[in-house]
Amino acid sequence: MTGDDDSVPDMSGVTVVNVLRAVADPIRLRIVQTLADGEQHAKCGTHWDFGVHKSTMTHHFRILRLAGLTRTTVTGRTHTIALRRDELNVRFPGLIDALIEDNDR
Amino acid sequence: MTGDDDSVPDMSGVTVVNVLRAVADPIRLRIVQTLADGEQHAKCGTHWDFGVHKSTMTHHFRILRLAGLTRTTVTGRTHTIALRRDELNVRFPGLIDALIEDNDR
Repeated sequence: MTGDDDSVPDMSGVTVVNVLRAVADPIRLRIVQTLADGEQHAKCGTHWDFGVHKSTMTHHFRILRLAGLTRTTVTGRTHTIALRRDELNVRFPGLIDALIEDNDR
Repeated sequence: MTGDDDSVPDMSGVTVVNVLRAVADPIRLRIVQTLADGEQHAKCGTHWDFGVHKSTMTHHFRILRLAGLTRTTVTGRTHTIALRRDELNVRFPGLIDALIEDNDR
């Protein structure tokens, strides 16, 4: 996988260490927590107002996708992102729930 | 905290991102999974036969301790390490359980 498109890894090849690396970042963890509502979110949405440059957000989105956490859907010119929550729950039971429940906020 | 002794951070100051960073490493994750039995483990025990140098293990033990995951107990000349599981369960419900249940192994 080049990572240059919107391809995602098969969940069977996703490791917990790679998932942990991906979410072990304050912004990426907040992205995952936002996506935990189960909805498709536009990549350019105002709810990503994390105080970082758009290119930084693109970088974070890419890391999450390549780690197996998210999936991008392209509809016309709109790119939306969603958490692969059902697949993640099967592969790593309880992990996403635990990440969402964190009480640091 | 200098990290040069066996001090541990107060759990109220431990963040989930720091915990995730600490466990986002294959060896440190395996250490946590080993410690999940709730027992005190000697730092020099044969169950740490992870194929890395002793100084590397010391480094990993230190990172886990400073991240709030473990506590070291010194009894005479024996240093044992244990997971702060009860405290972690209160602060990050479900997180340790999810890390232990990973099915990469």
